[in-house]
Amino acid sequence: MIGVFDSGIGGLTVVRALMRQLPDYDILYFGDTARTPYGNKSADTVRRYARENTAFLMDHGARLVVMACNTASSVATEDLTETVDVPVFEVVTPAVVQAVRETRQKRVGVIGTRATVASGVYERRIHAMDPAVRVFSRPCPLLVPLVEEGWIGKPETNMIVKKYLLPLKTRRIDTLILGCTHYPMLTPVIQRKIGRRVRIVDSSVSVAAAVRRFLKAHPAMDESLVRQGRTRICASDVTAQFEKTARQTLKKPISLEQVRL
Amino acid sequence: MIGVFDSGIGGLTVVRALMRQLPDYDILYFGDTARTPYGNKSADTVRRYARENTAFLMDHGARLVVMACNTASSVATEDLTETVDVPVFEVVTPAVVQAVRETRQKRVGVIGTRATVASGVYERRIHAMDPAVRVFSRPCPLLVPLVEEGWIGKPETNMIVKKYLLPLKTRRIDTLILGCTHYPMLTPVIQRKIGRRVRIVDSSVSVAAAVRRFLKAHPAMDESLVRQGRTRICASDVTAQFEKTARQTLKKPISLEQVRL
Repeated sequence: MIGVFDSGIGGLTVVRALMRQLPDYDILYFGDTARTPYGNKSADTVRRYARENTAFLMDHGARLVVMACNTASSVATEDLTETVDVPVFEVVTPAVVQAVRETRQKRVGVIGTRATVASGVYERRIHAMDPAVRVFSRPCPLLVPLVEEGWIGKPETNMIVKKYLLPLKTRRIDTLILGCTHYPMLTPVIQRKIGRRVRIVDSSVSVAAAVRRFLKAHPAMDESLVRQGRTRICASDVTAQFEKTARQTLKKPISLEQVRL
Repeated sequence: MIGVFDSGIGGLTVVRALMRQLPDYDILYFGDTARTPYGNKSADTVRRYARENTAFLMDHGARLVVMACNTASSVATEDLTETVDVPVFEVVTPAVVQAVRETRQKRVGVIGTRATVASGVYERRIHAMDPAVRVFSRPCPLLVPLVEEGWIGKPETNMIVKKYLLPLKTRRIDTLILGCTHYPMLTPVIQRKIGRRVRIVDSSVSVAAAVRRFLKAHPAMDESLVRQGRTRICASDVTAQFEKTARQTLKKPISLEQVRL
């Protein structure tokens, strides 16, 4: 099946995108809610967590792994690709490809956690594709807790989004990458504060499209994946808040399993 | 030596209070920054973390353990007291004793993380001491990330503090327990928003005083503790932000050690 992991609940936006684009495929999700969030933690620690989460997914039948976490994608991709023998997808590259294709003024903004922005991975990948693109990055560490608290649409959240986006607005970006799988839940206020003309690139949709294209190009792999439309959601710490968000995001009845790594 | 643990950096306010009240005693601190925060996690997970952290402290010479974390104190005290054979201090009881002594109108407010408030531990302990005291609790889950981001004094933080405290203000409390070791860093804005007449009880100061009284009453234990004035700070994930906060809080040069449980 397709294995997906995230530091917590944000990666469910990737599961939702996979369910839309590949509706029949079995999906196993692991949210590392017992150690969430990853965004303020060191690269070494995040790499160790990524390896442990991937081992869990593979032990439970995953034959293709999606890191639905921008922090892990930013710091753990090379390490993980070297150590596991199944295809590993990360959320950075598909968004970068889309942003480079869509920007007209060659001015791209990136928002993410502190760890993601500090890694510089978006700049490097964008410049590898097109050195002429100017990249303006901004860490937004409070957006994850605000989303997890459900403070979407509150005036304090809107003020904080505005404060975070102001330096990108003054740089006149025309494309903005949401470099964290939590942020799509804030798309309306982000669009309002950054301006209607800026195109927003949602990495959860981009990565699901990349998996779909990969499976089309690799029929042997495609045929080896189970297609009974089942979604299994596991987490290292199942709380009421997690269950509520999972049901709201996936819009279907699901059972959550608590697992220990 | 005296062992102290917290989910992250907040417990350093307890180390600071111990250094002031027991300046010669060696202190070993463990901040579980690789799994921080605890405040939104389930009671079972927090109990397991408390056991693991305590085992680390005891393996490294602690003969007395302070849980400098209100979430762990709220859900793991009984479990930990049963499983370890050294004295365990928690931050809830000392603050409760002080609040019950200080309230005149018998109207006490408590602010803390979601897990701490959901546990109901403050109400239970206060009512065990004085059933006539009315207790009004309020979870403030965004204050920990705001403090960890250093957003102290910013207008958004002040608005969020005001929003959180409003229901307690309308209940006309006269005493407010800061039920999270991060919150003392926000005392000025909390005092301003709740009103000058409300007495604020800081659990980090209360627990240090409780340890001091205990050692005075138990000379054999007191004499067994090393007193060379050393402070050793360990964390499961050492980041630049952690180092900065540790130096600011303790106001002395310290070396941080990364450890793995």
